[in-house]
Amino acid sequence: MSEIRTDPLSGHRVIVATNRLKRPHEFHRYSQRRSDAVCPFCVGNEAKTPPEIAAYRQWRPEPDADDWQLRVVPNLYPAIGQEEATASTPDDSDLFPVQTGKGTHELVIESPQHVRSFSELSTTQAHRTLVAFRDRLLVHTRSNHRYTQVFKNVGPEAGASIDHTHSQLLALPDLPPKVQRLVQNCRTYHGNHGKCLVCALTEREMQSNRQILHTDNFAAYCPFAGCFPYGFRIVPRIHQSRFQDVPFPQLGELAQLLRDLLIALESTIENPAYNLLIQNSPFDTDREEYYHWHVEVFPRLTNLAGFECATGCYINPVSPDKAASDLRELVRSDLCGR
Amino acid sequence: MSEIRTDPLSGHRVIVATNRLKRPHEFHRYSQRRSDAVCPFCVGNEAKTPPEIAAYRQWRPEPDADDWQLRVVPNLYPAIGQEEATASTPDDSDLFPVQTGKGTHELVIESPQHVRSFSELSTTQAHRTLVAFRDRLLVHTRSNHRYTQVFKNVGPEAGASIDHTHSQLLALPDLPPKVQRLVQNCRTYHGNHGKCLVCALTEREMQSNRQILHTDNFAAYCPFAGCFPYGFRIVPRIHQSRFQDVPFPQLGELAQLLRDLLIALESTIENPAYNLLIQNSPFDTDREEYYHWHVEVFPRLTNLAGFECATGCYINPVSPDKAASDLRELVRSDLCGR
Repeated sequence: MSEIRTDPLSGHRVIVATNRLKRPHEFHRYSQRRSDAVCPFCVGNEAKTPPEIAAYRQWRPEPDADDWQLRVVPNLYPAIGQEEATASTPDDSDLFPVQTGKGTHELVIESPQHVRSFSELSTTQAHRTLVAFRDRLLVHTRSNHRYTQVFKNVGPEAGASIDHTHSQLLALPDLPPKVQRLVQNCRTYHGNHGKCLVCALTEREMQSNRQILHTDNFAAYCPFAGCFPYGFRIVPRIHQSRFQDVPFPQLGELAQLLRDLLIALESTIENPAYNLLIQNSPFDTDREEYYHWHVEVFPRLTNLAGFECATGCYINPVSPDKAASDLRELVRSDLCGR
Repeated sequence: MSEIRTDPLSGHRVIVATNRLKRPHEFHRYSQRRSDAVCPFCVGNEAKTPPEIAAYRQWRPEPDADDWQLRVVPNLYPAIGQEEATASTPDDSDLFPVQTGKGTHELVIESPQHVRSFSELSTTQAHRTLVAFRDRLLVHTRSNHRYTQVFKNVGPEAGASIDHTHSQLLALPDLPPKVQRLVQNCRTYHGNHGKCLVCALTEREMQSNRQILHTDNFAAYCPFAGCFPYGFRIVPRIHQSRFQDVPFPQLGELAQLLRDLLIALESTIENPAYNLLIQNSPFDTDREEYYHWHVEVFPRLTNLAGFECATGCYINPVSPDKAASDLRELVRSDLCGR
């Protein structure tokens, strides 16, 4: 059973999820994990995951058969589960606030083959992955969840405990602190300026040296105040609030763009760990005017140390202009080579 | 030259410090760093650091002589420096806010010997370290800095790039986001309840199963909403706003307590990486009523992954009650053994 607690001092929120201690490698030094065990995500090892929630197959649609192309399974060690989260130690002060509600923690296994990075997927596999995100988000919007974080950890420095390429969807009963701030910043800007903050930012960034490239429907740039070296953001060029509203062909375009940019990143830095995040709208329906979904890619080339944990201030040793210039060169030469 | 930027979307702040790219190991996989190079912090290698700012010696007070017990030196790769930070790309919109001002980035080398953790220092060395923190903070309060973050990274997973035990002081021209929130939460609670939030929290925590132990002047507990497994907080039992005001003997008491707790942590988890942070008052003088300094120790046994980066919500697989119980047992048997 998980419990969602908030520290009244820092405002940090934490999911206390003691069931995750069953995770075998939890307290080995994560940077020294070995991946010599049988991979639970490879084709043929379906029995090593809980039964699938959804799967994408070409034919023979038996559940858990081994002819799948993409599987969605519950996380064996969910951070938050389907049971109602309640306070284990009810308290009448306001010092120990506890969030109640249900969640869900799903894994998207993007390929039956043991590849590590999103960039190693075929364009079809990458496209299918984004379609699966959309399909799951559509299911989550019809639940009582208020927000689902879609994220991907690649490499141990980025928090991956399993090498085989996969993404995660973690649905929450309420908005987590950073999402609250993101939504609030967008609402405030819209209130003050009568336009969308992401639209305004994208327009300026794409005129700057921090632009990387754009396609028909998406723009990619290294944000002026990017916290991670070589971090980049992808946004739909036309205002759009929810990832679930992206049409099928545009998901293919986005998948291709993401792959190209990750290949460029991986040509710059050898085998980088990274996080890929979809900063989607909360599931309320009244944010369409001011919220604009986007993707963030955070390469994890430097660790988050005491300074970052204490202050919420990051240190980025690569200027976003230089990062964009490097990525631009590589993504263009790559595009030319195709 | 560093530049302090704020992302209008997330509210994140970042110090873009391109001079740090000179750091030799910057883009090696930080989890695979080798420490076979000559240690710049060991006695005899003083020439490998910039000239010392301060040093603690028993005799012969020549600068940079090799008979020191503790040295304070400028960081060779400062995140922020003495030059005025200014906007490289002035902008008339409110989309690219840049913070101006000066900072300083100092290292405290706590021992001439090559030891790794604060727990390996002698009680005298540990005491001297806290005295050095106090002395440097007193110097910083007389500068134009608004806040100095004191922190310590132990182990690569906690962001340490050098094994030899050291701490860092990073002085900033303004309050970073998390410190702003911390101060604001304390002010709001004091306004609503007429008492200090940390005093109120400590009273309740020390009556709970999350208390670890207390000494004459300090209390230690695992916070109810602790974000890191086995994380603990130490607070002065009597309301005190500024770390600089702790008397010399009490710094010795705190040093002993910290060592005991870190030894207990290291008996629970083998060779854990951790951050040690002093959450001190900003240097303004009007916060004494409501702000209460404290120490946080964050063991880094799990990495901050995509979910944490996206949401500001942590996942802690060890309940603080269980962590406190483990630490309590060990710290008591250790104390008995002395």
